[in-house]
Amino acid sequence: MATTPAKRITVTIRPKAGLRDPEGNAILHALAALGWEDVENVHVGKTVTFDVGADTDDAARAEAEAMCRKILANPVIEDYEIVVGDTGS
Amino acid sequence: MATTPAKRITVTIRPKAGLRDPEGNAILHALAALGWEDVENVHVGKTVTFDVGADTDDAARAEAEAMCRKILANPVIEDYEIVVGDTGS
Repeated sequence: MATTPAKRITVTIRPKAGLRDPEGNAILHALAALGWEDVENVHVGKTVTFDVGADTDDAARAEAEAMCRKILANPVIEDYEIVVGDTGS
Repeated sequence: MATTPAKRITVTIRPKAGLRDPEGNAILHALAALGWEDVENVHVGKTVTFDVGADTDDAARAEAEAMCRKILANPVIEDYEIVVGDTGS
């Protein structure tokens, strides 16, 4: 194979359970003001999707883990979840 | 059953394809500066997770759709995806 195949990574980053989630709180109150009063446990997170060159899913996941620890997430206050898939191409 | 069961909704909101994604671009360049030069197509989105009282998955999805159109997403510039599941409890 001439080039390294690319894997599509989706990282979801959320505030750790128990930590304040001011954005989630704002959405909870806005929904209640609009009449959705039966909504609970609102949590807001971030997703980062990208393609990375990697031969295997495990290699792609290891790369993504390193990126999360180094720049994408703040492991002190955030949890992250990595999903590895194939690119559409 | 005395109370309406709750469904756990996860909404993922992303800039529409083709629109500028400045946050994704910033991450792309930061990763490249750290040596991850084989990363492409970085897109940043938002996830909103919440529990809503609904008898069926379809009813929960319809509620979430209405919330997306009204407040969670900006349908002019964003796409959204709704996943309905059960709450842990």
